[in-house]
Amino acid sequence: MSERDPYGLRRVVRPKGVLPQQAEVLDPRLPLGADELAIDVERLNVDAASFRQLQQECAGDVPRIAARVREIVAERGKLQNPVTGSGGMLIGRVAEVGAAHPAYPGLKRGDRIATLVSLTLTPLLLEEIRGVQPNAERLDVRGRAILFATGLWAPMPEDLPEATALAVLDVCGAPAWVARLAAKGQRVLVLGAGKSGSLACAQARRNGAHVTALDYRRDAAQALVSDGLADAWLAADATHPLEVYAQTKGAFDLVVNCASVPGTEMASILSVREGGEVLFFSMATSFTAAALGAEGIGKDVRLTIGNGYARGHATLALDLVRQTPALQKIFATRVA
Amino acid sequence: MSERDPYGLRRVVRPKGVLPQQAEVLDPRLPLGADELAIDVERLNVDAASFRQLQQECAGDVPRIAARVREIVAERGKLQNPVTGSGGMLIGRVAEVGAAHPAYPGLKRGDRIATLVSLTLTPLLLEEIRGVQPNAERLDVRGRAILFATGLWAPMPEDLPEATALAVLDVCGAPAWVARLAAKGQRVLVLGAGKSGSLACAQARRNGAHVTALDYRRDAAQALVSDGLADAWLAADATHPLEVYAQTKGAFDLVVNCASVPGTEMASILSVREGGEVLFFSMATSFTAAALGAEGIGKDVRLTIGNGYARGHATLALDLVRQTPALQKIFATRVA
Repeated sequence: MSERDPYGLRRVVRPKGVLPQQAEVLDPRLPLGADELAIDVERLNVDAASFRQLQQECAGDVPRIAARVREIVAERGKLQNPVTGSGGMLIGRVAEVGAAHPAYPGLKRGDRIATLVSLTLTPLLLEEIRGVQPNAERLDVRGRAILFATGLWAPMPEDLPEATALAVLDVCGAPAWVARLAAKGQRVLVLGAGKSGSLACAQARRNGAHVTALDYRRDAAQALVSDGLADAWLAADATHPLEVYAQTKGAFDLVVNCASVPGTEMASILSVREGGEVLFFSMATSFTAAALGAEGIGKDVRLTIGNGYARGHATLALDLVRQTPALQKIFATRVA
Repeated sequence: MSERDPYGLRRVVRPKGVLPQQAEVLDPRLPLGADELAIDVERLNVDAASFRQLQQECAGDVPRIAARVREIVAERGKLQNPVTGSGGMLIGRVAEVGAAHPAYPGLKRGDRIATLVSLTLTPLLLEEIRGVQPNAERLDVRGRAILFATGLWAPMPEDLPEATALAVLDVCGAPAWVARLAAKGQRVLVLGAGKSGSLACAQARRNGAHVTALDYRRDAAQALVSDGLADAWLAADATHPLEVYAQTKGAFDLVVNCASVPGTEMASILSVREGGEVLFFSMATSFTAAALGAEGIGKDVRLTIGNGYARGHATLALDLVRQTPALQKIFATRVA
């Protein structure tokens, strides 16, 4: 119990010798390690690609979605969607902090925190699913989760609605990477006008780029312009690369893919200029479709995997929302 | 017949409205379009991840591998491995050049060329499989392939053995991207001492980096050092991230993943320093494993998808081999 285990290897049931994220099954029932933190879980914010898959599999039926989530967590000891491989994050109250955990003694029992690491590696025991909010891609639950010493977390901000903060923290990698990659004067295209797409638009604009928002829902794309988060909008289905190409003409310096459906790699690659860059933040991205897709049409572009973490990402995203009323409105609507 | 169709949409059988690479089935039997090029195929160089999967599926049995390839091509009209999604490339002689193809009139019937676009989007009709060379991941065949106007190709060089040139051209994206990303004085780790790994090592060293080669085959890693292609070597199984981490200590500026097996994302991410970069050239890379893996351990690193194309990649790779006798020796051995 006193040994250090910063990556949570003790919790891996099978296969042996892998990290918790690669594991098929974790054990959330072990006694708490000295360098672990236990959380009384209140809410699970499911990754968009995962939630969409669950909805499709369960034909949109809420009780079936709840049952399927219960089943996955019971089988795997974590909420990792077996089809998409993705997870999400959670909020809850600190139940116990091991004396060797880096947050000890800053955090105390009862503090409200959000985890910033994926549910795909977070040991989770579900006692009850109290509700499913499909619009917010959220489940209200009772349960117990474990955070390892390397697991990122953030105190829940008190000046933003809880559901908004949770949703922002879930996708805070996207604006943080856009902040690094979008340069002043560049033409930036954001695919998907959802939560991460809205943050990406707002951040790219703040960087001084000319931002175009694209979504298959004309209203959603248009709203980003009328809300002042984007300069222009396009309505097209990103799974139809040729339809998108007809509108984008391959003229963008940077394309940020925040779509939540599979099959949008080619629309992204066709939309970027020769020598430009695509930043893939959709968890439904296929590595081979992107790598071979660019080669297949002889396009010399840089393809970047959206790392869910970047130093300071939580603060950057929360501040962006604090300073942008339109984003507060969007998140309030989406997570209601 | 006279219409332009630079992406080969006319060849897509299903689903409709996608590019040839995303298609399940292509039609290689249509009459040649005015902007297409027909090739009498002699050799197929199968992508390493695909060939390994075929070997496993067929328990290493050569006639079964041939039968499986015949079956895939008959079903799909292209050699795209249904499991890995990857392809490879081919060489052959020009059979016919449409008058509206960009290579007309530079190329003429009988010229020997290699395609630089993936087999995953190349319409292919196989008449005969004449042999399978497992060591070279190559099939000797008779067949007919089609190249679209955007399809990259290269004349087969006359000063290098044909099999060497084919193998080099197949992975020429890797050294081209390493040439851009590896900086003088950096510590570079290359995972996998195969063909693309050897080229990546040689190019990183030419850029002035300090290069460490890692492979599960101690001999292969060691040989890169004794051949002067790397400065140091490590023997470890890249599918065991903790074993790799114990040796690399997370100290590398750039990690180039040229492994041909799945499950090597975490070994790559654990080996790179905070703020460093991983360049994934393995076609067995999982997008979500990379994106969520870095987030899961709170690591702020840039993750790049190895685009199979970069301007000038064929010339760069062939020149690298021309100027590096050790690489000629490696390729001669591997493709014999």
